[in-house]
This record gives sequence, structure tokens and C-alpha cells, in this order.
Amino acid sequence: MARVSQEHLDARRRQILDGAASCFARNGFHATSMQDVLKEVDLSAGAVYRYFGGKEELIAAIVAEVLDTVRGILEQATEESPPPTPDVLIPRALARMREQRPATLDGGEWMFPRLMIQVWTETTRNPELAVVLGEGYRKVRTAWGKVAESYRDAGLMPAGTDTDAMARAMIALVQGFAAQMALFGGISEQTLRDGLRALMAVRCAPGTPGTGSPHG
Amino acid sequence: MARVSQEHLDARRRQILDGAASCFARNGFHATSMQDVLKEVDLSAGAVYRYFGGKEELIAAIVAEVLDTVRGILEQATEESPPPTPDVLIPRALARMREQRPATLDGGEWMFPRLMIQVWTETTRNPELAVVLGEGYRKVRTAWGKVAESYRDAGLMPAGTDTDAMARAMIALVQGFAAQMALFGGISEQTLRDGLRALMAVRCAPGTPGTGSPHG
Repeated sequence: MARVSQEHLDARRRQILDGAASCFARNGFHATSMQDVLKEVDLSAGAVYRYFGGKEELIAAIVAEVLDTVRGILEQATEESPPPTPDVLIPRALARMREQRPATLDGGEWMFPRLMIQVWTETTRNPELAVVLGEGYRKVRTAWGKVAESYRDAGLMPAGTDTDAMARAMIALVQGFAAQMALFGGISEQTLRDGLRALMAVRCAPGTPGTGSPHG
Repeated sequence: MARVSQEHLDARRRQILDGAASCFARNGFHATSMQDVLKEVDLSAGAVYRYFGGKEELIAAIVAEVLDTVRGILEQATEESPPPTPDVLIPRALARMREQRPATLDGGEWMFPRLMIQVWTETTRNPELAVVLGEGYRKVRTAWGKVAESYRDAGLMPAGTDTDAMARAMIALVQGFAAQMALFGGISEQTLRDGLRALMAVRCAPGTPGTGSPHG
């Protein structure tokens, strides 16, 4: 048997993960079989099982990789000074995801948001996947929390801000925009930015119960 | 055959919709059969088919009803003066959803967020449902857009704000928070509010390219 380079092994692994992700994004995890994945990547069962023990391992690898990509983008952001504010950072995070995971579905639609909502649904009935997603979410939440801390430290936000609550709000925005993309098609970077700026620009009405100044 | 009151008919319809929603939230649409629904609601096929022609009709009715509830909550908000800001309105919208759709899963978890992500996934492979969701989304987006207009008209936001882009950002927050609830359990109203206030409190760093003042 011919020796194969690490580069070849990595490329093959990539090919399998991308093919599996396409199947999952298109039809969901439940309705996708390993046979579908083999057909999609045009490889023998032996070639694929050399890398992944089955559908569950493929799913876990895809989810872990996606969450790692998100974390990487955020870690970069916290090194910038001043840190990019949410109206810049959130559209950029989505654009970087698209650069790093550019695969499209047959209609030309960006595949990643579709894959993401499939992952969520599958997580609710797959305890092993729930563990992978839970760990990944914890790390991503920490990474967004550090972004929030960097806003605070740069004086862009009051000192007493709950940075973890803010992390969850920023994650919610990414999740929600991605859900809208999966369901209703692409959203321009300008729309993302304008929407986020509008949100950041709202002033609380003075003297209204329960709507005190956000700096209060 | 005994005449039945409209009240009885409505209650029966409600019972079927709630039972079907439970099945769908637990196992997804794909894995739920009409037999599962009949078993859940403990009614005969005849009794159920009198109201709904099949699974597709049940799904469409559930989705339409949920979107109507959301719209109702928002329409109420635009009548308030001054309008409740996002840090108040978004937690309230989620709390009202919970009051109006209080059903829980076996573990006591609020069912609605789970149902919502199941709806999203199903929408990507069900063109009829995509039409229902698309129409509902359009209406909900208009309703959130009116909320954004009411902020602008009350002087809480600059005159030139893109209210539709802001509507999409507010919807993204609701969607994202609901996804987090479905995946990782409940989020307190305080965490929601603090996260939103933090987001609204971020000031852009002066003189940074691409991060001009949100009022600019």
C-alpha cells in the first residue's frame, strides 16, 4: 500500500466533512444515512470509515469545527484596540464564517445557516451531540464574554455591565440572523450593520418605570 | 347525533393542536406520525380528522397561531406611549409567549422554544410550510418595524434609522434567545434585560474606521 502524506489525509478528511455537511444541511441528520454520505463524497465505505466511525462521529466533528471557527474569529477581535463594536463585529463574524465555510446548496444558497439549524434540532434528541454543543457553547460564550470585557475595559460600556448577559445577547443576534438566513435567504452586511446600530442607538425614555437609563 | 357547542369545538381543536405541538416539539415533524398525535390527544382518528386533514394542516395551523400571538404582543406594544424599549419589550414578548403557550415537556422545560426550532428545520424541506412561515414572518417583521417607528417618533432613536433593519435585529434577538432556551434551558428575565441593556449601552469608539457614531 502506498504511503500517503498528511496533506492528503487532511484533504480527504476535509472532503468527507464537507460532503457530510452538505447532506445534513439538505435533508437533516435524521433523514441522512452513511450511504448518502458515501454517495455524496464518492468514496468507498472503507475510505470513509477510516476517518469516522459513523454518522454520530461526523456530526460531532462538524459541530466542534464550526464552534472552533467562531471562537477563533472572536479571539482575534479581542486583540484589536479598540475592540470592534457589535455593529461591526457581528456582521464581520458572519462574513468570516462565510469565507471559511463557503459551501453552497444546489440553489446557490450559503449552506452554513441551514446546517446550523439542523444541528440545533438534532441536539434536542441526541444526548451525545448535546454534550458536544454544550461544551462548544460554553467556550463561545466565554469568548464573547471577553469581547464584552474588552468593550468595558476600553470605556465603551459602563463598568458594572454584566458581560456574560451581554455575551448571550450577542450570541442570540448571530443565531437569530443565521436562522433568518436559513429560512428567508441572505441578509446584506449593510442591513445587519444598520439594524445593530439602530439597536445600539435606542435611548430609554426618561422616567418610565422599568426603562431606566441603560447606564443606570 | 348530539349538537355540540362552539365552545366545545374550540376546546377540542385547542386540545388537538396542543397535543400535536407536544409531539412535534419532542420528536420533530419528520419522526411524528398522525398515529402519534392520536395517541397523545387520546382521540379517535374520526374526531381528529374532523378538524385537521393531516399532519401538514396541523403544522400550518400551529405555525400560523404562534406567529399571530407574537404579532398581537407587538401590536399592543406600539399603542403604549412611550413605547417600551427593546430591553423591556423583548423579555416581555418572551414572557407573554410563555403565559399564552405554557405547555411544558416531560422534564418541565418550556415547550415553545423547542417547537420553534423544529418548525425552522421542517420549513427548509417543506415548501407549503415555507409559504406559511414566510407570510407570517413578513407580518411579524412589519409589526416589529412599527415598534421601531414608534421609537423614532418618540425621539428615542435618530430620524434616519432604518426601521426594517432594526426590526430584523430585534427578531434575531428573540429567535436567538429562544434557540438558546431550546438548547441550554431557561434564561431569566433579568439576564435577558441586562444583556439587552448592555448592548444598547455600547458606545462606538471615536474615530475608528467603520465604527462611527450610531447617530451619525
